[in-house]
Amino acid sequence: MAKAVTVTSGTLRPRPLSRTLLFALIPTAVWFLLRPLIDPTPPMPALHACVGFSILAFLAALHLVPALGGIFVQANLKGRDLLKTYDDPVPESLGLVCASIYILLLIVFIPFAFSDFFAHQQQQPRKIREGIVVSEFPHQQLSVYLSSILSLLIATMLGFLDDVFDIRWRHKIPIPIIAAIPLLLVYYSEGGKTDVVVPIPLRWLLGSLINLGPLYYVYMSLLSTFCTNSINILAGINGSEVSQALIIALSVILNDLLYLPWPFGFRIPLYLLGRPTGVEVGGVWSAGMAYGSRELVERHLFSLYFMLPLVGVCAGFLYHNWYPARAFPGDTLCYVTGMAFAVVGIQAHFSKTLLLFFLPQIFNFLLSCPQLFGLVPCPRHRVPRFDPGSGLLHTSHAAFKDHPPSRLATLALRALAILGFVQLTEEPSTGRIVETTNLTLLNVLLLRFGPMKEDSLVKMLIGSQVAGSALAFVVRYGLAGLVYDGNRR
Amino acid sequence: MAKAVTVTSGTLRPRPLSRTLLFALIPTAVWFLLRPLIDPTPPMPALHACVGFSILAFLAALHLVPALGGIFVQANLKGRDLLKTYDDPVPESLGLVCASIYILLLIVFIPFAFSDFFAHQQQQPRKIREGIVVSEFPHQQLSVYLSSILSLLIATMLGFLDDVFDIRWRHKIPIPIIAAIPLLLVYYSEGGKTDVVVPIPLRWLLGSLINLGPLYYVYMSLLSTFCTNSINILAGINGSEVSQALIIALSVILNDLLYLPWPFGFRIPLYLLGRPTGVEVGGVWSAGMAYGSRELVERHLFSLYFMLPLVGVCAGFLYHNWYPARAFPGDTLCYVTGMAFAVVGIQAHFSKTLLLFFLPQIFNFLLSCPQLFGLVPCPRHRVPRFDPGSGLLHTSHAAFKDHPPSRLATLALRALAILGFVQLTEEPSTGRIVETTNLTLLNVLLLRFGPMKEDSLVKMLIGSQVAGSALAFVVRYGLAGLVYDGNRR
Repeated sequence: MAKAVTVTSGTLRPRPLSRTLLFALIPTAVWFLLRPLIDPTPPMPALHACVGFSILAFLAALHLVPALGGIFVQANLKGRDLLKTYDDPVPESLGLVCASIYILLLIVFIPFAFSDFFAHQQQQPRKIREGIVVSEFPHQQLSVYLSSILSLLIATMLGFLDDVFDIRWRHKIPIPIIAAIPLLLVYYSEGGKTDVVVPIPLRWLLGSLINLGPLYYVYMSLLSTFCTNSINILAGINGSEVSQALIIALSVILNDLLYLPWPFGFRIPLYLLGRPTGVEVGGVWSAGMAYGSRELVERHLFSLYFMLPLVGVCAGFLYHNWYPARAFPGDTLCYVTGMAFAVVGIQAHFSKTLLLFFLPQIFNFLLSCPQLFGLVPCPRHRVPRFDPGSGLLHTSHAAFKDHPPSRLATLALRALAILGFVQLTEEPSTGRIVETTNLTLLNVLLLRFGPMKEDSLVKMLIGSQVAGSALAFVVRYGLAGLVYDGNRR
Repeated sequence: MAKAVTVTSGTLRPRPLSRTLLFALIPTAVWFLLRPLIDPTPPMPALHACVGFSILAFLAALHLVPALGGIFVQANLKGRDLLKTYDDPVPESLGLVCASIYILLLIVFIPFAFSDFFAHQQQQPRKIREGIVVSEFPHQQLSVYLSSILSLLIATMLGFLDDVFDIRWRHKIPIPIIAAIPLLLVYYSEGGKTDVVVPIPLRWLLGSLINLGPLYYVYMSLLSTFCTNSINILAGINGSEVSQALIIALSVILNDLLYLPWPFGFRIPLYLLGRPTGVEVGGVWSAGMAYGSRELVERHLFSLYFMLPLVGVCAGFLYHNWYPARAFPGDTLCYVTGMAFAVVGIQAHFSKTLLLFFLPQIFNFLLSCPQLFGLVPCPRHRVPRFDPGSGLLHTSHAAFKDHPPSRLATLALRALAILGFVQLTEEPSTGRIVETTNLTLLNVLLLRFGPMKEDSLVKMLIGSQVAGSALAFVVRYGLAGLVYDGNRR
């Protein structure tokens, strides 16, 4: 309460930046960037460079977001914070700054990703120039990189256009499909496999492998649509978009790390889940879940190269987007982060695992469906309602004003009410539903745990995202063994 | 005069669109797109598809520019036409629509560019699936495509950011270098040659080939900087930017056509230039300047794939940008077209020939240097001055207000005055220069040919661009023989 009053009275100044952090992190980043050049070369030199770039991404986001905020306000990219008592304009679409830093660093990183090739070339320069055998540049990997960056850039562009022109949401839905075209093309050109392993219980019917063919491409473009839009619709309070992206990216990174060739053996204790042996590790590439498969290691390295700098920019941005927000992400951030997840899911071939990290988003999307598809009225904003007196957020409501709820809508809402996901207001005489709480995860949290402050709600959202990821790991490495044999996907 | 009055009195309505043209061109485009599928397959199927896409690009630009103009005005992307008597807001940055159409069609075109590969794969599906020999997708070419599109998209993005945030020109200069990074990377990964053929008169000193090494990359990034910025500074009157782009693109196309394997022999009559035989044509790939080199044909096909749709969007946009303009291109158009030229110049290896098509831009840039580098004062706008009474454009002036011209500035301006490129105003008593006409090609034209209407000036600009291209062809295919042997570059 006291805090809310303090914010109300003061003008909204940018958060202070620590110079100590800057001067401590710059040398660290430089060390990571230079480490691959020092003998003995580390086993994964590009990963070191990537960590260096990610620290730079963090610092750049941390410092550029407040520095450029004024320019965004001048260019009319600003908004009022709906859940506050003050009217100060907050710069909007700062996700563009994050996306620019992210994509620029990814482009500059490309040569590092191919450092293996360059190092090899330097070792035997004579042989290459004179002999017939020309050392072959891994063009295939390069086109994977380029198409991924292209997709990210299209997503950024479209997100920013959305912010500038305020595109209607029905027109927005197909946008990520356009952005995914380069991805799908390269997937095809790679001779992309469209076979899917059939879960054990269904094998009597479908066999152990099923070739989805063109349907697989439909699945992948839907994946990119889902990843971008699902973050976008679980938004509305300070820090919600970027914290979701941050937790998902960290979960993907944790999953990737399992597949790296660690110098020490490790096991995932799965005996709790009914399998006594744990996952066997080791092989040519030492430890890790890659079981000695160079391809798996490379795929997860690729994923790390895209996820680590994303964590950098998201963490830097979250500092300014945290309650009370000094900068808004705009749709740009949702688009670029969502597309980044789709990129790694598709290119590193772990789209099913990826979707497990989207549990809160899937829940929020399924819950939102009646409103998204017009069964229940959908107001312009579904964010929680702010009570200026108490400084607390309450559930927001959608009223059936124009027409009474259809039979299907009544059925759906009553079912959701039984599950405790909505609260209904009924006409006392007829028992007809006249109002429902909005169908979002945020409203469900407010309904379950009562009115709370905005920062408590975002912390609870982060908590549910973390819990979702923990559950995802259990499902992926525990239960998957019950429906799939092997762990290759 | 009468016309100017008409325009003044009416409100600025979009130009009418011909439905006949639409209904005539759509089937034409579809025919070109489907033609490669009909037996007998044409020798260059992708080129047919490209022509089809270019017609679609023309139609899309023609119809989307007026349709989206209102949205741009709403989003505050609008400007007043400085050289008109009316105050109607004209939508600005419509180059974004052109760039979006262009890039989207280029992305959709990618599979067509590889139709050779797909056709080949279809012919022998059994062999590929069963045998050990996997037909190899041309990943190298794909990465060339992807990096080119990536560069175009970065240029678009940066151009649009420039329009939204109004970046200062000193900050703008390095922007195209960033956009060129993907191009240069792929050039390098291709094992890009950095050798330059030395002109005959210098061979006694340097040998016949000189390896520029990293300098060649500097040259290429400067090329992209020059191509984008030089179109941007020769701007300011209705239709100037897009007509330059159109003529240059057409010149590149004409040059490309010389290298295609035509079914009939042809010669370029060079006897006028002192070489009696003309250029020999023919070889494996029939006629054309490629002399049977498949590589040369493919390079110029690549160039055509990028230039034909560019001509489409530019022609469609010019209709609305023509005097009196209904839409402004913004920096976006200059950036994307300039980058498109840099892309084909670099990737199809004819950067020197390309620069010859930029003769008016080179002249304008060299002439502008004293103002760009602060020797002579540079006002915010250097566009010609509009006289509302007569409706004519007059030369605009830059005055030495703060300080008298330096000795170097005086020398430069006097030299330019002798050449007839500027008109100086002197203080009668001391003879000191107090004012000069602005150092642009447009002012030179007004100085030489007297005040004229805006559309006459843009026609004269187009004329000089066409004359420049004609001269370029004479130099390239006539005089180049005097300093270079062979015609491979």
